[in-house]
Amino acid sequence: MAYRLLYPLRTYLIVSGRMSEEVNVMTADWVTVLSHKPVLVGVAISPKRYTHKLIEKYGEYVIAVPSKDMLRDVWIAGTESGPDKLSFMNISFMESKTVRTPSIREALANIECRVVAKNTYGDHTFFVGEVTGYTFNKEVYDSEEYAPKKLSLFIAHVAKEKFTRFSEEIIIPEI
Amino acid sequence: MAYRLLYPLRTYLIVSGRMSEEVNVMTADWVTVLSHKPVLVGVAISPKRYTHKLIEKYGEYVIAVPSKDMLRDVWIAGTESGPDKLSFMNISFMESKTVRTPSIREALANIECRVVAKNTYGDHTFFVGEVTGYTFNKEVYDSEEYAPKKLSLFIAHVAKEKFTRFSEEIIIPEI
Repeated sequence: MAYRLLYPLRTYLIVSGRMSEEVNVMTADWVTVLSHKPVLVGVAISPKRYTHKLIEKYGEYVIAVPSKDMLRDVWIAGTESGPDKLSFMNISFMESKTVRTPSIREALANIECRVVAKNTYGDHTFFVGEVTGYTFNKEVYDSEEYAPKKLSLFIAHVAKEKFTRFSEEIIIPEI
Repeated sequence: MAYRLLYPLRTYLIVSGRMSEEVNVMTADWVTVLSHKPVLVGVAISPKRYTHKLIEKYGEYVIAVPSKDMLRDVWIAGTESGPDKLSFMNISFMESKTVRTPSIREALANIECRVVAKNTYGDHTFFVGEVTGYTFNKEVYDSEEYAPKKLSLFIAHVAKEKFTRFSEEIIIPEI
């Protein structure tokens, strides 16, 4: 459990598959940015996950940013396996702009990714995605720099069923 | 700036080098967990950084978890280049348990890593480290599960010079 020392970590929803065929949603904390030019991100996913199969098949995924109001969905997506869970989640899908994997309408943002590299690190596969498009809630992010504004809407994972939010307070280093 | 849609992200201090030779500290937001067994973590670092050279040379790094009281150090470590910055930072080093790269005494935790893989993704190098040891403040983390307890001590990066803290409030999904 030594990796818990890096927590709290942001938690995201990973959408995979295609609307007309099959779609799945899982929760992932192990997400990071990797490069500015091109903009690359990465997500570590266990080969045991249904999402792993769908990303392998379609070569695309969407990282959706859940709000505090989607915590129940985050929990279900993280603890139940396979697309059946969608029937008891409160999310709806919308078309993405640049990939055929859908985005989540209720999410604060959706980051559309095309897989450009894949590496096995230990017991997880790391899917590196180039960001080809995105949508976001303009009340929640600054529309020029895409920086988050309403911080208390964003959640992070502490451990197991425990989550937390950010403070609205911005702190600036005193130099 | 599309990657900003994944922010706020936790911010960490990356220590590289060896005490008797040369040591450097930089700030990194692009850090994630990658695997449970073995415990692997990854950090994306630009080849332009002095830290990149030191990790290449020694094959080790330490991820230190800064507290809100170390914000000034986080800012200096993220904006100044090379070991000269250490002279105007307020941190002190201590021996790590399993690597020769030192840990930071004032940090909430130090995660000691040995590089086991390295991949270039876009304009950054992703250094995958196996966690070989760690130290942590027992007042801040649960000593059995290593889960963070005093959440308002932890910081996250919002954008540029803007940082924020977590709320102390734990929220649990209602199922």
